[in-house]
Amino acid sequence: MTGYSTGTPDGELDLLITNGLVITLDDEGRRFQPGAVAVRGSRIAEVGPAASILSGRKASKTIDASGCVVLPGLINAHTHAAMTLFRGLADDLPLMEWLQNHIFPAEAKLREDWVYWGTLLACAEMVLSGTTTFCDMYLFEHKVAEAARAAGMRALVGEVLYDFPSPHYGPIENGLRFTESLIEEWRSDPLVRIAVEPHAIYTCSPELLRRCHDLATAQDTPLIIHLAESQWEVEEVLARYGLRPVAHLENLGLLGPHLIADHCVALDFHDMELLAEHKVQVAHNPESNMKLASGIAPVPALLEMGVNVALGTDGCASNNDLDLLGEMDSCAKLHKVAGQDPTVLSAATVLSMATRNGAKALGMEGQVGQLAPGMLADIIVVDFEQPHLTPVYEPASHLVYAARGADVRHTIIHGRLVMENRKLLTMDVGEVMERVRSYARIIRP
Amino acid sequence: MTGYSTGTPDGELDLLITNGLVITLDDEGRRFQPGAVAVRGSRIAEVGPAASILSGRKASKTIDASGCVVLPGLINAHTHAAMTLFRGLADDLPLMEWLQNHIFPAEAKLREDWVYWGTLLACAEMVLSGTTTFCDMYLFEHKVAEAARAAGMRALVGEVLYDFPSPHYGPIENGLRFTESLIEEWRSDPLVRIAVEPHAIYTCSPELLRRCHDLATAQDTPLIIHLAESQWEVEEVLARYGLRPVAHLENLGLLGPHLIADHCVALDFHDMELLAEHKVQVAHNPESNMKLASGIAPVPALLEMGVNVALGTDGCASNNDLDLLGEMDSCAKLHKVAGQDPTVLSAATVLSMATRNGAKALGMEGQVGQLAPGMLADIIVVDFEQPHLTPVYEPASHLVYAARGADVRHTIIHGRLVMENRKLLTMDVGEVMERVRSYARIIRP
Repeated sequence: MTGYSTGTPDGELDLLITNGLVITLDDEGRRFQPGAVAVRGSRIAEVGPAASILSGRKASKTIDASGCVVLPGLINAHTHAAMTLFRGLADDLPLMEWLQNHIFPAEAKLREDWVYWGTLLACAEMVLSGTTTFCDMYLFEHKVAEAARAAGMRALVGEVLYDFPSPHYGPIENGLRFTESLIEEWRSDPLVRIAVEPHAIYTCSPELLRRCHDLATAQDTPLIIHLAESQWEVEEVLARYGLRPVAHLENLGLLGPHLIADHCVALDFHDMELLAEHKVQVAHNPESNMKLASGIAPVPALLEMGVNVALGTDGCASNNDLDLLGEMDSCAKLHKVAGQDPTVLSAATVLSMATRNGAKALGMEGQVGQLAPGMLADIIVVDFEQPHLTPVYEPASHLVYAARGADVRHTIIHGRLVMENRKLLTMDVGEVMERVRSYARIIRP
Repeated sequence: MTGYSTGTPDGELDLLITNGLVITLDDEGRRFQPGAVAVRGSRIAEVGPAASILSGRKASKTIDASGCVVLPGLINAHTHAAMTLFRGLADDLPLMEWLQNHIFPAEAKLREDWVYWGTLLACAEMVLSGTTTFCDMYLFEHKVAEAARAAGMRALVGEVLYDFPSPHYGPIENGLRFTESLIEEWRSDPLVRIAVEPHAIYTCSPELLRRCHDLATAQDTPLIIHLAESQWEVEEVLARYGLRPVAHLENLGLLGPHLIADHCVALDFHDMELLAEHKVQVAHNPESNMKLASGIAPVPALLEMGVNVALGTDGCASNNDLDLLGEMDSCAKLHKVAGQDPTVLSAATVLSMATRNGAKALGMEGQVGQLAPGMLADIIVVDFEQPHLTPVYEPASHLVYAARGADVRHTIIHGRLVMENRKLLTMDVGEVMERVRSYARIIRP
């Protein structure tokens, strides 16, 4: 087996990660041990056996990944990053009591600096636990974009849109204009892209949904919505429109490969057929669905039908962490017991959900989610020299069933080392935590 | 609020843990912030506000727990520690294929030194993730006892007993004699106690079960069995004996407060009534039950009926880790979604399962599982100064929903510091990992 390369083979490298087990997650599922990944600028230059890449090469920075697994950075396909502000504010409550007595009153106090620092805290947690890209929906989303840039994280973000007045932009006309201006402002950013994000069917009129769709299509950017998150939503949408949620979106012409549908818990067979037929992207959030008792998304069936299912954590108010390594574990185990079948959602399948499938869902296929020459250099190095990851028979099994965020040693995004030896290089994490603590004292005096 | 104390108030202390938030989990649910725990010898001398305990006291060793939560060590109520040897050896398979083609052939190669080093690896992982007591069932259990002693862990252990010849002791007569000799040998050990452990109803004749029960009763030690782990077991026992598993044990006179029943997944209402009536101890293993697709134990109903339910990880071949902090998270979330009720198994309830309930299940009530004067000093210090544990509204929420093993900073067992600043003080963990890797190369050449 030889490495494959692009570019000038004897060109100087900016970063060389070597001597680890490299799990490329490429189309051939190649692994190299000991392997190496060479980075020039923001992109991967070469991937292959350590010996073949090392010969006669110079690199500005070399990371020795002995005893480690090197893989693509994880992709969090659905979150509300700034909700770190409300982590553990209220748990173990009925959904409506949780929302109306705790989350909504706290969100009514929101200010844009809260969102900035809350998101930066989320970025710290995500980078520390191996996530390199996240997809966000919230208020004051320009601050989410700024925080992602400051943290050096890749992100697809969008202001949440709904019929009623927003604490941020006021009436919906402003919300649509704000989204357009965000798209314009961030159009050429290397890390951040803007999506159009209507909240849900039960908070957005058919007219608003159509306008969102038109805007996303015109701007060639993803459309993102919470869809069929609970049986309650199904009943509500049926009562209002005489159609189930997925059929309602089909009726409005919204289904398509540019649509990212978050949750998709309460689906019937016809819903699943529609999602498959229109190649809708699904973002699955098992831990949030479990904690809120929303239900269990039919993920094995969706995958069977060819639907692309990515993995997300949802926000910290309903999880309560952003650790995708833990989320993979929950995902694999939940569907086994739910389907009474230990063979569904294998470790390899779930690892793909958190990497390749995430990239495809977010419109970044061929850019991130794999380690291959020419792709953007979003890479994590996981330390396997630890008691809970010993011995190693199958590394993918450990990544899903035994590794946790704290096992990630280095995180590289867009060719840049953003976390080295568990130290964040893009922010003063002590300051970030102190800021969020100061807001928490206002949220709960 | 003042601290409560025993012993000579001005006596010298061996260990003082101060300035943290102390969650005692005592009968009054007291917390102290900043609080302190004072240790003399193997026992807790005082618990209370830091200021009142500090005044004029000298301690041989002081741990500054600023920014940390101090709580009782976690209790793993069911595991097969040495199965770290098979971590990730085979996943995502039907139960019988997994057992017959992978686990049983690997176990046929077992030797006592494998069990010793595999258990030591498990102890390393458990101490590093805040577990101070474990309850074990396996082969060559004298080696488990020795490993626990070497690691400085508290343990309730017992040789697995069944009708067919054991790779360790051969015929069952030897197994019963071996158990008796173990009980004798370890009778006065401060850390290790021996239980009588018939494997399961489907592997033990009624006569063997009765003899185990008589031995446990005569020796005043717990009786431990896998019970109603799956619907398959229920069908099998019904077919053989015309009774469901719990009723079969009742019929044999085995039900009682000294019986620890592992799993208890496939229960009907009458089974639950029997467990409650006879005050049987239940060890719940949510992640293993999920991964093997065994089913979901009716834990909220059992708790409602007054059954004491403790928490376990089961072995690493079906989990694949021993992190009770992660297990608490899975436990709380699984039962919310299974019962379609986000209010069941609150963070506080699950934290009790992993501490107080575990102590009661293992016959150690009043000894461990709480921080109170006179109790054994099994204490963990969890570092909350981290992005994923910021901000803090309710510490119990973070312990269950956001903290993981790697957040545990110090572990004290029987008054002895066994892990300090994430460094294990009772073993050379590099040597332990190397030994287990060498056995893994034999298990899968």
